Order: sequence, then C-alpha cells, then structure tokens
Amino acid sequence: MRDQYYEQLDHIVDELVLITDRVRTAVADATTALLETDLPTAERVIGGESDIEESIDEVEERALVLLATQQPVAGDLRQLVSTLRMVADLQRMSALAVHVSKIARRRMPVSAVPEPVRPLIRDMANVAHSMIGSAARIVSERDLDAAAALEFEDDEMDRLRQELFRVLLEGTWEHGVDTAIDLALLGRYYERMGDHAVNMARRVVYLVTGELPVA
Amino acid sequence: MRDQYYEQLDHIVDELVLITDRVRTAVADATTALLETDLPTAERVIGGESDIEESIDEVEERALVLLATQQPVAGDLRQLVSTLRMVADLQRMSALAVHVSKIARRRMPVSAVPEPVRPLIRDMANVAHSMIGSAARIVSERDLDAAAALEFEDDEMDRLRQELFRVLLEGTWEHGVDTAIDLALLGRYYERMGDHAVNMARRVVYLVTGELPVA
Repeated sequence: MRDQYYEQLDHIVDELVLITDRVRTAVADATTALLETDLPTAERVIGGESDIEESIDEVEERALVLLATQQPVAGDLRQLVSTLRMVADLQRMSALAVHVSKIARRRMPVSAVPEPVRPLIRDMANVAHSMIGSAARIVSERDLDAAAALEFEDDEMDRLRQELFRVLLEGTWEHGVDTAIDLALLGRYYERMGDHAVNMARRVVYLVTGELPVA
Repeated sequence: MRDQYYEQLDHIVDELVLITDRVRTAVADATTALLETDLPTAERVIGGESDIEESIDEVEERALVLLATQQPVAGDLRQLVSTLRMVADLQRMSALAVHVSKIARRRMPVSAVPEPVRPLIRDMANVAHSMIGSAARIVSERDLDAAAALEFEDDEMDRLRQELFRVLLEGTWEHGVDTAIDLALLGRYYERMGDHAVNMARRVVYLVTGELPVA
C-alpha cells in the first residue's frame, strides 16, 4: 500500500512536468501563429486547451485523493499542496497562450505585430518560453539555483515590456490604435506567463525549504 | 483539542470573508482614484497591498498547519484545500486593484478615463465590486444560488468589455494611443477581478457538492 502511495506521488510530479512541457509548446505555437500569421497553428493552440485542462483536472483529482486518503505529513503534504497551487498556474499559462492565438487569428491575414516591434515581441516570447522550460526543470529536479536564476529572467521580461510601452507611446506610432491595444495586451500576456513560471519555481522553493515564498 | 480544531476552521472562513471585504474596498478605492483623479486614495490602495498580503499569508499558514497537524478528511479537507485556492484569487484581485491605482496615479492630474468611456468604466467597476461582494457572501453563507447568479454578472462584464473595445476601435477615437492602451488594460483588470470572484464561488460549489468546478 505504502509503495503504491509513493508511486502515486512520483506520478503526480511526472505529470506536472509533462503538462508544463505541453504548455510551453502551446506558448511556442501561439508565438508562431502570431509572428508567422499561421492560422492552422493558431487553431491548434485554441483547440488544444481543453486537452491540457483535462490533464490538469486529472492531476488535481489525484492530489486531492491522496490528500484525503493517505493523510500525508511534512514533505509529502507540502508536495500535494504545492501541486494544487501549480496546476492553477499551468491553467492560467495555457489560457494566456490561447489569448495570444486568438489575437493572431483575429488579425489574419495581416500580422498583429507590425515590423518595428517584431524583435521585441519575439524577445518577450523567447523569455516566456525559456522561463516555462526552467519551471519544468525546477519542478522535475528541485533545483533551487535555477529557481533563483529565474528571477533574473523575470527582470529581463519587465525590461522588455517597458521597452514595448516606450515604443507604443513615443508619439511616432503609425500603426493605429487597434494594433497598439493588441500589442499592449500581448505584452501583458507574455509578462503574466513569466510571472506564473516564477510562481511555480517559488512553490518548489517552499517544497524544499518549507518556507512560504515572499510573494 | 477537537473543539479548538473546529474553532480554527471557523476562524479561517471568517478571515477569508474579512480579506475579501478588504479587497472589495481596495477595488472601490482604486475606482475612486481613477474616476475622481484622487491621489491620496490611489496611494492608500498602493500602500495597503502589503497589509492585505500579510493577512493572506497568515490564513494560508493557518490552513497549512491544520492540514499538517489535524489530518482532516472529507468536508474539512475540502475546506482547507479550497482556502488555499481562494487565497491565490484574493492575492490577484488585490494586485489588480493596485494596477488600476497605478494607472490612475501615472496620469494625474489628468484623468486616465476620458469623458466618452467614463460610464462604461464606471459600469465595469460596479460589476467587479458587486461580484466581489457576492463572492464574500458566498464564502460566508455557502449560498449555491448566489454562486449560480454570479455567472450572469460575469456575462454582463464580458458584454461591457466588448463594448469598451468597440468604442476604442471604431476609428473615431480622439484621445491618443496612450489613453487607449490604458483603457484596454483597465478593461482587462476589471474583467480579471470578476473572473477571480467567479473562481472563488466555484470553489465554494466544490466545497458543498464535492464536485470539481467545470472551469
């Protein structure tokens, strides 16, 4: 019985890592849809959300069943509680990838991202993608150094978002209010993906150290 | 010992309701700061975030201690797990009220909300405020009918946000790209507050019925 319990705990962590990787792929696909005005890829991200949600619900259910039936303590309890918090982050990141894809789709056949800000949006997307990859590794390997490094990537994301707003607001914007609004929202979506990756990493820190994260 | 445990459980619910009310006040104040260009009120919301976070951390800590020491089952377990999810919603709503206040502050002494969209922003703020009030009552009284009604308010919020975007994009916008971006973000912030209120209500449904919410 006890062996089965530990198997279940390990299985939950493996599932969390797998779902994080799927969310990362959804984010990469959403960026492709956005920058390459690729409709089939946009549709795939939008259609794929419910599959990811199903997996998330399953992990949540498993964690709740273990909490209810095994009365875990200490580290195991923290693992399960952290799991419940991390699935909420994964759910939001998946929804944000869908938001990006929907902006891409609405603008087609034109790109939602005009030439002057393409490098900036590409950089934000790359940082978000890298941060989610780090989150997966941190969950999988409980790597506290990587968790600390992730905070620096988050600073880089903040810098990029400020730069994007500077460009939108410098008074020489020639691509219309509608495009500026889409870009402001896209900036926010990528920034929030990064925030959720940071949240996941902080949950792992809590898991290992038992200290609640500061933020 | 057992009496103390139930006292603790009740205390956690009371605290959740109190914090929800404080978040609701922060949202109302943020809206005042925004529509009345009221700097002291904006500063109060921004400065008050850390107090709310402290209360949130305390409730979370209490819930974790009970989970770890009392090995709760069934309804009590669900109550504690729901608490951990709801504190995350409260944290986000509080952060969103701060975002609104910061946009208000950045624009002063001018209002961030020009005349033609003032009624719309006021309506969105009112709906958000009302939804958070409903969430507090739902948590306090476990009122499933009110939880169902909240979904209708959320539909109203979606309608208002679409209307806001229609106005921003209809091609006759005369208040600049910067103002349009602020308004798009404000629309998103109020909408997200409503989403978090719905999340809290769904957690109460789960608490009462044992069924995980659909979304």
